Amino acid sequence: MEHTTAILLEVFIIFAAAQAGGWLARLVRLPDVVGQIVAGCVIGPSVLGWIAPSEPLEVLSEIGVVLLLFAVGLETRIEDVKRVGGSAFAVGVIGVIIPFVVGAFWAHSLGPDWPRSLFVAAAFVATSAGITASVLKQMGVLRATESRVILGAAVIDDILAMLLLGVVVAIQAGGSLRVGTLAVVAAEAIGFVVVVGWLGTWMMRRSSKWLDRANNPMAPLLAVLVLCLGLAWVSTRFGLAAIIGAFLAGMIASETHQRVQLEEQMQPLLVLLTPFFFVLTGAKIELAKLASSEALWMLLVATVLALLTKLAGGWLGAIKLGPRSALIVGIGMVPRGEVGIVVAALGLSAGVFGDQLYAVIIAMSLLTSVIAPPFLSLLLKNRDQGPEAKV
Amino acid sequence: MEHTTAILLEVFIIFAAAQAGGWLARLVRLPDVVGQIVAGCVIGPSVLGWIAPSEPLEVLSEIGVVLLLFAVGLETRIEDVKRVGGSAFAVGVIGVIIPFVVGAFWAHSLGPDWPRSLFVAAAFVATSAGITASVLKQMGVLRATESRVILGAAVIDDILAMLLLGVVVAIQAGGSLRVGTLAVVAAEAIGFVVVVGWLGTWMMRRSSKWLDRANNPMAPLLAVLVLCLGLAWVSTRFGLAAIIGAFLAGMIASETHQRVQLEEQMQPLLVLLTPFFFVLTGAKIELAKLASSEALWMLLVATVLALLTKLAGGWLGAIKLGPRSALIVGIGMVPRGEVGIVVAALGLSAGVFGDQLYAVIIAMSLLTSVIAPPFLSLLLKNRDQGPEAKV
Repeated sequence: MEHTTAILLEVFIIFAAAQAGGWLARLVRLPDVVGQIVAGCVIGPSVLGWIAPSEPLEVLSEIGVVLLLFAVGLETRIEDVKRVGGSAFAVGVIGVIIPFVVGAFWAHSLGPDWPRSLFVAAAFVATSAGITASVLKQMGVLRATESRVILGAAVIDDILAMLLLGVVVAIQAGGSLRVGTLAVVAAEAIGFVVVVGWLGTWMMRRSSKWLDRANNPMAPLLAVLVLCLGLAWVSTRFGLAAIIGAFLAGMIASETHQRVQLEEQMQPLLVLLTPFFFVLTGAKIELAKLASSEALWMLLVATVLALLTKLAGGWLGAIKLGPRSALIVGIGMVPRGEVGIVVAALGLSAGVFGDQLYAVIIAMSLLTSVIAPPFLSLLLKNRDQGPEAKV
Repeated sequence: MEHTTAILLEVFIIFAAAQAGGWLARLVRLPDVVGQIVAGCVIGPSVLGWIAPSEPLEVLSEIGVVLLLFAVGLETRIEDVKRVGGSAFAVGVIGVIIPFVVGAFWAHSLGPDWPRSLFVAAAFVATSAGITASVLKQMGVLRATESRVILGAAVIDDILAMLLLGVVVAIQAGGSLRVGTLAVVAAEAIGFVVVVGWLGTWMMRRSSKWLDRANNPMAPLLAVLVLCLGLAWVSTRFGLAAIIGAFLAGMIASETHQRVQLEEQMQPLLVLLTPFFFVLTGAKIELAKLASSEALWMLLVATVLALLTKLAGGWLGAIKLGPRSALIVGIGMVPRGEVGIVVAALGLSAGVFGDQLYAVIIAMSLLTSVIAPPFLSLLLKNRDQGPEAKV
């Protein structure tokens, strides 16, 4: 009882600090997650020491990130990809390859072996669909061609990043980069994704009809939460991260006709539980590790590389829309956010990243999320006044 | 990482078992909570041993019950009490006094000293507004006079039960029943409730206007969740249970004009997190302790007393509505459920209840929730066909 009460205070502090941080971030027009991570850094051991990571908080954080990636999956619709077709596919694929390759060479140049370097490179890959989508939504241009290319590419990008994450985690666990291992791991990851996606979609389509008959507005949510938690656990049995299973569960759930209702019902869960993930992420940053010219230099290089590689990938992929639209798409793909942070957190807990590299990757993810939105909104505003606005 | 994965499996098992139990309960027309507690008993150490109570699970359970009592508070509106006036007040007060007094004498006759007996008696007191309301809602008679009396009385009943719980917990902690201590404890509890209720309502009315300007549909929910977690913790600093603060936060939040929206947004949180409370509650029942003729006899007596005392209190309080309506009100007040179980769980963790008494109280709460609904729906059905149906 006594101990649960102490945790209750930490739960309150984390939640309240996350709200304060999110509010301050919005004041300066930054995404909430930036404020929540900074809040975590402030109340964590690095500065105030009001909270310290513990097992119950880790579990809350894990449930939070599982639900977050489930919600990202829920927004990931196959139809959106199909509609924008080739450009989105090109942006997604090229926008993954360039940052991954450049990131791997950069990481390897710092000293780690190849398996570790590939793990670090995975943190360069995934665009944060959430941050970009929220900017596009705020600007009221969600239905413009560039927006649909960005969202479609973010879908492919997410799938590739998830796959890549599974592969690099397994390679790292294996510890060597043999082609045979790589092929087995990739086949296993792809097999898991394809089989679960195919079987799950088929089953969900059947149960989504059945759930309508349940005559309970919460029944579809309960069913997909069981699926989410179940696949999150199963994916760990395949050597993949729990969030990959949650993401797949979200994609499966997005195929039901209750998708819109589910997205709405997920909101309260996300606002209650994801702050634990972001605040704990921030609480794990050791500020002292960034306070050297070496670390700051590393951060500058990582951020510039992350920005330029993604911009180049997006621009090349979308070039047939015209150079200006390609630039909008490129900038729109820059924010990293959640997935980069998830990779860094996985890397830290798996012992792949040192504290300095972890701090640098988190800071890089934050900086890309902070730098891109203002440029994106500037380009979109000018676009609306130009002759090419009527899309 | 490894450990978090193991907990993730338990989280999945608990959530899935709760859904299965709730579904089976609905099949035989019982409230979900009955099925969830039974599921907890089955997957817990008593039978299958698939899960075992641990600190992370206790924290999830605590957050679940805090949110549950917050939601109960959110349905507790002062206006409902005012509208049905005297009858509801009489039913609420008499319906608390009779079970409490009889329960205390019964408990004392079994051996415990008076402070412990009063604690046990507190488990006899609180009607489960949730169970009764869900039956009334299902029957489509929420606006009938009897329903409004039942709901109004459940409000007063809840407040008195919460107050009583605070008092008996503090008396138990003090260990003696001196009138001075009792007065101070009662004054502190009443003072906390009144000051927080008054100040909180005043502040919430102001911020509820301010929150509209936030232009974010989640802003009111975030604000009241901060309030809920904050008051839950503060109430523990006043020697009260965390759930009392959460209940007060809910009552404060029910005064805002975002109440309906908040009730809706709380649903996903409740369906995700309250199962952890009910399943863990069930997992703590030691079936072996009920497998004696002494325990079964104790259970029979406790259930009959709980049923008759509440029925008598409700009937006496509502007699001016006529004997048949008074009977409907009396039966409607019988289900215990959540609060009785919360008291038993508090009693177990505070060392007040032995395992046998805990098992008996839980089983008694379940039985009242199981026995009352069929009778209630039978009486309400006949009522609709009779001449007095036009209310």
